[in-house]
Amino acid sequence: MTSLRDSINEELKTFTRIQQVALEGIGAELAPVARAMEQFIVDGGKRLRPIFAYLGYLGSGGKPRSEIVKAVTSLELVHVCALIHDDVMDGSDLRRNRPAIHRQFEKLHRDHSYHGEPSKFGIAAAILLGDLALVWSDRVLRDSGITESELHRALPVFNEMRDELMAGQYLDVLEGALASSSVARSLKVARFKSGKYSIERPLHFGGALVGASVDILNSYSSFGLPLGEAFQLRDDILGVFGDPGLTGKPAGDDLREGKRTVLIAMAYEGATNSQTQELNRGLGASDVDVEKLREIIVNTGALARCEEMIESLRNDALTSLHSSAINLEIRRTLEEMALIATERVK
Amino acid sequence: MTSLRDSINEELKTFTRIQQVALEGIGAELAPVARAMEQFIVDGGKRLRPIFAYLGYLGSGGKPRSEIVKAVTSLELVHVCALIHDDVMDGSDLRRNRPAIHRQFEKLHRDHSYHGEPSKFGIAAAILLGDLALVWSDRVLRDSGITESELHRALPVFNEMRDELMAGQYLDVLEGALASSSVARSLKVARFKSGKYSIERPLHFGGALVGASVDILNSYSSFGLPLGEAFQLRDDILGVFGDPGLTGKPAGDDLREGKRTVLIAMAYEGATNSQTQELNRGLGASDVDVEKLREIIVNTGALARCEEMIESLRNDALTSLHSSAINLEIRRTLEEMALIATERVK
Repeated sequence: MTSLRDSINEELKTFTRIQQVALEGIGAELAPVARAMEQFIVDGGKRLRPIFAYLGYLGSGGKPRSEIVKAVTSLELVHVCALIHDDVMDGSDLRRNRPAIHRQFEKLHRDHSYHGEPSKFGIAAAILLGDLALVWSDRVLRDSGITESELHRALPVFNEMRDELMAGQYLDVLEGALASSSVARSLKVARFKSGKYSIERPLHFGGALVGASVDILNSYSSFGLPLGEAFQLRDDILGVFGDPGLTGKPAGDDLREGKRTVLIAMAYEGATNSQTQELNRGLGASDVDVEKLREIIVNTGALARCEEMIESLRNDALTSLHSSAINLEIRRTLEEMALIATERVK
Repeated sequence: MTSLRDSINEELKTFTRIQQVALEGIGAELAPVARAMEQFIVDGGKRLRPIFAYLGYLGSGGKPRSEIVKAVTSLELVHVCALIHDDVMDGSDLRRNRPAIHRQFEKLHRDHSYHGEPSKFGIAAAILLGDLALVWSDRVLRDSGITESELHRALPVFNEMRDELMAGQYLDVLEGALASSSVARSLKVARFKSGKYSIERPLHFGGALVGASVDILNSYSSFGLPLGEAFQLRDDILGVFGDPGLTGKPAGDDLREGKRTVLIAMAYEGATNSQTQELNRGLGASDVDVEKLREIIVNTGALARCEEMIESLRNDALTSLHSSAINLEIRRTLEEMALIATERVK
């Protein structure tokens, strides 16, 4: 895994440098855009989606090729768009221990005493940088050197995945606006937002590059869907209990943003009247008492229930993996990745 | 032209309906997203970019084919993304005589008494709908039925165009923040934002589908670049003097938004001290005296100078068209389109 991740990082670095030169060629004024893109793309992330895509390719009988490594990095760029736009929508200040992109450009505006509102400038820049990442995701795929037929097979999955991502993000935003506390509804959002997008679709993308059989694609779904949900539930827990040093976000950030996750819906289900009032008061409030809400989430049994659900979903994923026709060596690697994607907070 | 525009509209309608069903399949909650996308895409616009792309295809010797009509509609969807995101960035209320997308979702939030800030919800939805349009632009291209080689040739131009668009938009936002009044700088922004994106690149896109010669591609540039700039200057004039019934925006909207266009830069160049003060006071102010600023723009000679520049750029475009190797019949149509793209306000 380490060496694959290194190769993916290397490809992202090379690609970003080329784009950086191209942007600065359009105008020196674009240097801050180029720098911010480079830093955001090169610095971060576990590269889960490209790794799963590459494994999806190998697992369907594909032979290791550097063009495929390039092609799968496209998924990371889609993710970069999602993160940059997500931070604007959530009004997040931090990402990966650095100011979010919209905050970086807000600061640029202030530092240069530009005209107009700094926050408006920051948001405009972040919208455009996210758009740029989405366009770059196409570019890196087209320029990866894969064959015309590989490209033609991969594009429908690629587009489907991005449609589902945007739809899932909308459902997520809507969920916050509905202030819903239904476990079933939150699970549906988790399924679209992450279940399909983070693991199943990347595996399918890799499979499409080889022209994998329906059998293999189905195995990818029965492994990837439950694992993707487990991954999202782990992310929900990290958003409340995670160590800022590891999550790159302030402690309890999801509570402050009032995110309606499965974990929160479970807390509401198990809450007494007074705990419900505390949850209502705290969620989405800038002065939320993080410790207090954490306690409620533990005491209502929501944390334990969420951990159980993660374990059960992961077990489903692993069971179906063992009975699949996926190449044996790749099955072992997928098992390892399943643990990495859902491991407990250290 | 009319029949080509009708065919493009027909393709956009069919495509959008299919996407609408797909979105509603993900969840009934997505119905407002599907409806807003459909209305925005189907209702509007002159379809200049798809038309130029189709002419670029025919002008390089391509034979009329319905797959190509489908493929060129992808450019309209890129434009839809640009408009939706642009309205968020500019904080515009109206687009094509309807509330801008972010305002529509702000209203949805209010009508349903959702939790949280309506404006935040509106912006989040508009960011996602714009992203969706960008993803759909790829989808319609891939699914158009063009051959693998046509797709492989068209994609680099397609990606280049979208990169330039985002870069141009950033320069435009930056120009507002710098409150610059240099004609040279504003012209550079006009070149990137519109010169390349609106006409030259669509022509190249059409040419790439056929595998046009470098000669033809160069002719497209020497026709498309000056014409694109002229088109942007016409747009600048419409933004100040245009009839709201035709522009779909309130009278003098660009003045209220404080846009730093070539027209405004020319007004500054020709302004007396007191006129400069009036411009400084009015531009970007919500209570701007539109009539007063229009008068200044006329009295400084900026309007006449801008009209002259449009005429001169259009003449450059037409002159280079006449000496080109582009198919004669298509040359005539391009000439007609040049007049449509730059015609005076009625």
